[in-house]
Amino acid sequence: MELLKERIRKDGKVKGTDVLKVDSFLNHQMDVKLFAEIGKELKRRYEGSEINKILTIESSGIGIACIVAQEFDCPVIFAKKTQTKNIAGEVFTAKVESFTHGRVYDIIVSKDFLKPEDKVLIIDDFLANGAALIGLCRLVQDAGAEVVGAGIVIEKAFQPGGDMLRAKGLRVESLARVKSMNEETGIEFID
Amino acid sequence: MELLKERIRKDGKVKGTDVLKVDSFLNHQMDVKLFAEIGKELKRRYEGSEINKILTIESSGIGIACIVAQEFDCPVIFAKKTQTKNIAGEVFTAKVESFTHGRVYDIIVSKDFLKPEDKVLIIDDFLANGAALIGLCRLVQDAGAEVVGAGIVIEKAFQPGGDMLRAKGLRVESLARVKSMNEETGIEFID
Repeated sequence: MELLKERIRKDGKVKGTDVLKVDSFLNHQMDVKLFAEIGKELKRRYEGSEINKILTIESSGIGIACIVAQEFDCPVIFAKKTQTKNIAGEVFTAKVESFTHGRVYDIIVSKDFLKPEDKVLIIDDFLANGAALIGLCRLVQDAGAEVVGAGIVIEKAFQPGGDMLRAKGLRVESLARVKSMNEETGIEFID
Repeated sequence: MELLKERIRKDGKVKGTDVLKVDSFLNHQMDVKLFAEIGKELKRRYEGSEINKILTIESSGIGIACIVAQEFDCPVIFAKKTQTKNIAGEVFTAKVESFTHGRVYDIIVSKDFLKPEDKVLIIDDFLANGAALIGLCRLVQDAGAEVVGAGIVIEKAFQPGGDMLRAKGLRVESLARVKSMNEETGIEFID
């Protein structure tokens, strides 16, 4: 998605060879016009696929998922990272190892909102090692529902998550795939 | 907002006299069509006010804020609840006491995204004791920016936050104001 790559080149900040800060438009300050274009592109890529629910994970996936959901005309559920008093009753749960934060956490979704008949598109801002995406797939599978695919804004294609999940048969549509990056030379994308 | 009150009556679940679960459409599963109507209503209420930024707090404010921002044609920032490695550089910070979770936490926003010229609308799903809203106002004030007002989906008007903040001069627009609620008799709204 050319518009997105241009934006990453313009406003993304590379730290070392593996940190890409996009907090001015994607995951702290959020450009909702860009999100609308992301929604249109994902709708185009998943044209013809039956999707009735979007699943994401707090926090930075939520805004993107909600605006993408307007294109798909369906509700969004977000997986929560710890059990709170607000979730009563039974939940689907999976463990996710966060490389960013250096810890393992539980993600949960209420059983009320994932049912065997659901056709689920998973949305997230980043795909790197794939840990969050694997956890989200597990929640859907535990519900007996179907993962139609994933829609990722930025894939760090030099990390193993994307290839590993595609090899397992998951459809992963990443709108910007970073081949390599470097503080001096900038970002190289896979076309 | 009648549509919202009807939805709360239909799908909200009252526990005791102070817990209102709306996780089927507002803060776990999210009905983005309802959010679009919320955006239109807030745009109507703040017609004529200059607003160039929306501020919310993770996690359940984010989806609402992003869809409301489409009406106001401006970006969203969400305050984060703990400092993570992803926020480099300097931040504005405030302490918030969570009655839901029984703890005090820090909220932070990068100084890059709140500037003295900003006219800010604060969005959140609930207003009860007002702790989160006070913290969010402090972030804006610390930036030297202006809080134009708050847009709240559900105000528990039997708790002190809304009245206390209005008495301090903050404009608070709550789309459904709950006067009282009870597991047996249901929910009474303020008109």
